[in-house]
Amino acid sequence: ILNKKIVVLPGDGIGPEVCNEAIKVLEAVAERFGHRFYFEKYLMGACAIDATGNPLPEETVDACMEADAILLGAIGDPKYDNNPAAKVRPEQGLLRLRKSLGLYANIRPVTAYDVLLDHSPLKNTRIAGADMLIFRELTGGIYFGEKGRTADSAYDNCTYSRLEIVRIAHLAFQSAALRRQKLTLVDKANVLETSRLWREVVQDMAQGYPDVAVDYLFVDNAAMQLILNPRAFDVILTENMFGDILSDEASVIAGSLGLLPSASVGNHVSLFEPIHGSYPQAKGKGIANPIAAILSAAMMLEHFNLQKEADLVKEAVHNALEKQVLTPELNPTSPYSTEQVGSFIAYYV
Amino acid sequence: ILNKKIVVLPGDGIGPEVCNEAIKVLEAVAERFGHRFYFEKYLMGACAIDATGNPLPEETVDACMEADAILLGAIGDPKYDNNPAAKVRPEQGLLRLRKSLGLYANIRPVTAYDVLLDHSPLKNTRIAGADMLIFRELTGGIYFGEKGRTADSAYDNCTYSRLEIVRIAHLAFQSAALRRQKLTLVDKANVLETSRLWREVVQDMAQGYPDVAVDYLFVDNAAMQLILNPRAFDVILTENMFGDILSDEASVIAGSLGLLPSASVGNHVSLFEPIHGSYPQAKGKGIANPIAAILSAAMMLEHFNLQKEADLVKEAVHNALEKQVLTPELNPTSPYSTEQVGSFIAYYV
Ligand SMILES: CC(C)[C@H](C(=O)O)[C@@H](O)C(=O)O
Ligand SMILES: CC(C)[C@H](C(=O)O)[C@@H](O)C(=O)O
Repeated sequence: ILNKKIVVLPGDGIGPEVCNEAIKVLEAVAERFGHRFYFEKYLMGACAIDATGNPLPEETVDACMEADAILLGAIGDPKYDNNPAAKVRPEQGLLRLRKSLGLYANIRPVTAYDVLLDHSPLKNTRIAGADMLIFRELTGGIYFGEKGRTADSAYDNCTYSRLEIVRIAHLAFQSAALRRQKLTLVDKANVLETSRLWREVVQDMAQGYPDVAVDYLFVDNAAMQLILNPRAFDVILTENMFGDILSDEASVIAGSLGLLPSASVGNHVSLFEPIHGSYPQAKGKGIANPIAAILSAAMMLEHFNLQKEADLVKEAVHNALEKQVLTPELNPTSPYSTEQVGSFIAYYV
Repeated sequence: ILNKKIVVLPGDGIGPEVCNEAIKVLEAVAERFGHRFYFEKYLMGACAIDATGNPLPEETVDACMEADAILLGAIGDPKYDNNPAAKVRPEQGLLRLRKSLGLYANIRPVTAYDVLLDHSPLKNTRIAGADMLIFRELTGGIYFGEKGRTADSAYDNCTYSRLEIVRIAHLAFQSAALRRQKLTLVDKANVLETSRLWREVVQDMAQGYPDVAVDYLFVDNAAMQLILNPRAFDVILTENMFGDILSDEASVIAGSLGLLPSASVGNHVSLFEPIHGSYPQAKGKGIANPIAAILSAAMMLEHFNLQKEADLVKEAVHNALEKQVLTPELNPTSPYSTEQVGSFIAYYV
């Protein structure tokens, strides 16, 4: 029986709606197993700018630092996206949070669900059985290098230190050892110096993991192979920007971005969030898919070492998929709302 | 009746084989229409390192400068890829050539061929009718920024000036105006300062092209939308690294990288090359698909304003596709070699 304090950052757009369903499922788990989960909501993103002028208020960081885990919805608002001159933006909140909490590894499982094969844009026979885990470095690279303007140009610097590569690579190797013993480093070592450092470090470390077969793909090739041969991948390890691109791309294997959870881990508390964005067009319509948020909650349970509880949530999600209790993006004729899908899954738990 | 001097850079791996077929087709065109094409071969890439120690010998650049057009095969060799410490690498030759010739715009058409729909990893109904043109900036960004090492880390700098963006954006807008009047800028303006500059410049320029509808996609979303909704794209405009990734990814729409040509244009002479790599495993086996190189030659003919000739080559390629005169990667039971596919197409011209 566990007591856990969970900070919830609902964020913008559909973030609050999907968080509510994840909380509902976590509460059902707590009730069934006798745990106590305390939820506290804080501001981050566009909603935090609107309320305080700051995309990541001090008190949000403080609360996160004292939490046992963080559940994040999504952040972002189109009013900032098309205003390149905006000085304060929702994404700064997320990026600063990742950095302040030292969340250096973002872990994204991608699986082809048998019942959703028809829904994927890929031919069913290509994806059936695909099951990969993407390790994306999350606090380095071009996201966090110095950036700015000179009179007539702009710059973004990308840097990686050995340490930044080693710590996430260990996690990826360890995870590969427990899975199908295959690790693919994705880089652009034929062009980038940072990629050559990644390759050097991973080549060295591979000797410490003799059971793991390592291969290396250039990012352009990887973007193609993910679609051509998704089953060929087990664990993928890559830097921040490439991981951002490839993990969204890989969502087509699952059939929808609305299914994909992620965990971000580091030195302190861990954070769990769907990989989808704030999807502002869907806000308030009850059509957002809560499954990615609910599976993120399942990853949180695993992180608490509540494997049985986590498995139950995943089973409940499978059950919803099989019974076609789905939001409209996965089943255009579905009568089920965000809340109904969440309740169905919570009920099964 | 034209006289043209064409410098051929066969390069490494399958480069020489596919160049030979493109030359064969260009010679057939010349004979049929009475043109004179003079071909001169020069070294670049791993073959140039082996022969001279330099991936781009001085005399290669000089010859290119005086040519009417350049045909490039492919460059790259695995002996450099897995040696992050190598100081001299084949890719340097290609990158320096792009820079020396000012080839700032790489133009990559991607089309779904009806007869190859079954071959694509994507469901036929998703891709039928897809037809897009990718404008990739080719001489700026993180490819060409300062890069290097410090004691324990590596860095790659990305910069873009207004001018670098404006000149390729004009080409993309003009091309969109002649096509389906849609231009999509792909960037990561929610994170990168360079992307914000791209968005600013393109937003400003859009006013000069009132007939072209402009939209903006973050690169992670674009990587997903390319697979989900390939028909939604007309002209895509993007920076160097994103263009590298997205254009290889988009090749799955055509069914094979072996079908996709490209043209690189700039201030001086233009260069035509398949987008595929040197595919060293296939070297000398007669299994390389020459179609991407042959379609690159067709783009060269268009560049010479020989539209009728170019159309004939494209028709000949379609004919080969329909008659299934294809190398094994497109038809595993095919008895046709690289040379036979090339001869079949040349014969039809
Ligand atoms: C919102 C954005 C800054 C973020 C990122 O690029 O990291 C998002 O795309 C993600 O993948 O979590
Ligand atoms: C070989 C490599 C340097 C090159 C690039 O990344 O530009 C290639 O992938 C391409 O797309 O032409």
